[in-house]
Amino acid sequence: MLFSNIAVLTPKGVREHQYVAVEGARIARISAERPIGTYGETYDGRGKLLLPGFVNAHSHTPMTLLRGYGENLALSDWLWRKIFPFEAHMTGKDIYWATLLGIAEMARYGITSTTDMYRELDHMARAFAESGAKINLSNGVTNFDASPYDALGAAREARAAVRDWQGAEDGRIAIDLALHAEYTSDEATARALAEEAGRLSCRVHVHVSETKKEHEECKARHGGRTPARYLADAGLFDSPATAAHCVWLEAEDFDILREKGVTVGSCPKSNLKLASGVFDARQALAKGVLVALGTDSVASNNNLNMLEEVRFFLLAQKGFSGDPTLLTPTQALFAATRAGALAQGREDCGAVVEGYRADLVVLDAALPAMRPVHDMLHNVAYAASGSDIVLTMCDGKVLYKDGVYPTMDIERVVFEVEKSRKRVVDAL
Amino acid sequence: MLFSNIAVLTPKGVREHQYVAVEGARIARISAERPIGTYGETYDGRGKLLLPGFVNAHSHTPMTLLRGYGENLALSDWLWRKIFPFEAHMTGKDIYWATLLGIAEMARYGITSTTDMYRELDHMARAFAESGAKINLSNGVTNFDASPYDALGAAREARAAVRDWQGAEDGRIAIDLALHAEYTSDEATARALAEEAGRLSCRVHVHVSETKKEHEECKARHGGRTPARYLADAGLFDSPATAAHCVWLEAEDFDILREKGVTVGSCPKSNLKLASGVFDARQALAKGVLVALGTDSVASNNNLNMLEEVRFFLLAQKGFSGDPTLLTPTQALFAATRAGALAQGREDCGAVVEGYRADLVVLDAALPAMRPVHDMLHNVAYAASGSDIVLTMCDGKVLYKDGVYPTMDIERVVFEVEKSRKRVVDAL
Repeated sequence: MLFSNIAVLTPKGVREHQYVAVEGARIARISAERPIGTYGETYDGRGKLLLPGFVNAHSHTPMTLLRGYGENLALSDWLWRKIFPFEAHMTGKDIYWATLLGIAEMARYGITSTTDMYRELDHMARAFAESGAKINLSNGVTNFDASPYDALGAAREARAAVRDWQGAEDGRIAIDLALHAEYTSDEATARALAEEAGRLSCRVHVHVSETKKEHEECKARHGGRTPARYLADAGLFDSPATAAHCVWLEAEDFDILREKGVTVGSCPKSNLKLASGVFDARQALAKGVLVALGTDSVASNNNLNMLEEVRFFLLAQKGFSGDPTLLTPTQALFAATRAGALAQGREDCGAVVEGYRADLVVLDAALPAMRPVHDMLHNVAYAASGSDIVLTMCDGKVLYKDGVYPTMDIERVVFEVEKSRKRVVDAL
Repeated sequence: MLFSNIAVLTPKGVREHQYVAVEGARIARISAERPIGTYGETYDGRGKLLLPGFVNAHSHTPMTLLRGYGENLALSDWLWRKIFPFEAHMTGKDIYWATLLGIAEMARYGITSTTDMYRELDHMARAFAESGAKINLSNGVTNFDASPYDALGAAREARAAVRDWQGAEDGRIAIDLALHAEYTSDEATARALAEEAGRLSCRVHVHVSETKKEHEECKARHGGRTPARYLADAGLFDSPATAAHCVWLEAEDFDILREKGVTVGSCPKSNLKLASGVFDARQALAKGVLVALGTDSVASNNNLNMLEEVRFFLLAQKGFSGDPTLLTPTQALFAATRAGALAQGREDCGAVVEGYRADLVVLDAALPAMRPVHDMLHNVAYAASGSDIVLTMCDGKVLYKDGVYPTMDIERVVFEVEKSRKRVVDAL
């Protein structure tokens, strides 16, 4: 495909009137003049802006099934009275269809890749393989009774997923190892998972200091050690890792993340909605910690609209810090694209650069809410709507275009998800 | 027009499979069965949700011209180095076209009425009259040199607007009187404007305690009196009034607003973006103060997407208070519709009720991001996108439908606004 006469957000800013040629899974050429050659399709880019696909740094995709189910509750009521009882009824088939619905929504909002922690990895990987989207997939290992690591169902499932799916679909599917969190496992499990990650050359995904309660209880349990300190001691950060949330990090925790090269997967909307708090982006930036953006699950969001996440990130940071100059559109869009790709170990993703993977988004930039144009980047970060995305492409393949999802039967997906919803609700 | 087989958000919640008949400017009938009679057009409502039109409680519509112009600056730099110099070059013609662009954007995002404070009232009123949208219009009176009220250009302009436009277009256009703020005028001006409002039976619009600096400096200037106390003493709240922002209100200020029946026009996104702070909705609700929602101008927002404003209101309140149960979707949607209509003195607007004005919005409720449906209201407040609005109607007239603006030449509007932008920027 050739994107013709289109504005492009490159790592060096917005460039007008460009031609972007996609060949196979990659961006073959970006130039100011129409390249010689024949292309299967020419996309008229007038009035449009080409962006790198968004990378979601922390999600639980199958939880689309719980959208709007538990609302306006305190965190513990929400989890124990609503989320966990519902999830206990979810089968692998439910998870397969709910994953597809999440992939459709992500494609609609320009997300081409996600770092996800859930379960039923085989069903999830199949949904991603079939639909053409990209994922770093993991299941959150927990251990409440000091079982040996190898006896844990989740550990065995993860090992099988690495065997069956690691690098599948030309690398589109990667398997990470995930420890759910400090407070849902013991130190031996953390150590064993860290060793397994090293042995299998897997990246690591873990929840860190999401709530004040979690953070303080960890310190009380572990001789004053914070979750970041505790996990670093267990060796978890000796593999490349994504630490989700990180709302309550202390100054030394930022030093640990910097030293170990851990990426923060910050989830601004979820953290506000559950009243967990606001991540200290100022300190992260000052210390050179890589910050990526995640949606968390729709049960606490309630959508997968990455541009909305960018806006909440920008405005919450300014509002909470009292400093309107904190965080620029460039920094926030970097967090939503390239930072996430680097955290996934995908060096050739997350930016519109020749030779990189063709993970691309087209935004309608000619709508009234995008006019006038003093600065296109300000309009994208502060004014555009995620719904104004008109095309999403992953590895050169169109996942969404003008209301159509070419890689899936969206009506069937919605039908099956509504059926699952009804069955689970009736059983509760 | 007859909306057929559509879900409707009524004051008592969502009702499925309804028929809503619009005759002239009003909602003639809401029923579960198709009404007898012939209608010019039948709208197929399957998969759609009918909502009351949003009411914007605080805006500066012509500032669409400054979208994205001054960004990432501290408030005083933003105002004095960017906004004021730009505005000094804006002519009545610029304001006319920029107002039309703002009306188009509001229609696109479901806003049918707005409470606006700017200048060049004649040009603005003409734009609203021609386009079919509803407005409570005012200009912000300032006085920096103790001139008598009658000598102020803005005061004379407001008086002329009342004479020429009050109640025009079957009441679609109302003229309010606005004192810009305590810190931009003197006490004699506040008193004179209050008297004028009583004499002309006008509603009042004023900025109150937007920033901590404004709030504290008022107390220092006026013997410890807060802006709310000072304005109440001047008689400004003896007419029905909208107080914009109210971020730094003290406990006694809430009592004053309650006693005087003043509505708060809260602007969550603008207050976060400029790092002004977060309005204390908990106290307002506890004391029975009416809270409506406003966008403020796009220079500090940067769009007029009311559903996004609803979401920021909900999430910022939860995140800042630390209480995830604070503020429900029902309360937030009331603030975005009926509360604003009441603040405008439009008793027959802001709700889908038989006999009320047909100010209506149709939302596409069948998209992946709106599925599954555990609770439609949760999906609207937390998941839907303002861009998924497919039809906006004001007084029974369609202002927006499926990308088309039947009451204006949108291409001409965008062309003229870009021309104004270029002329002003070149002159700076």
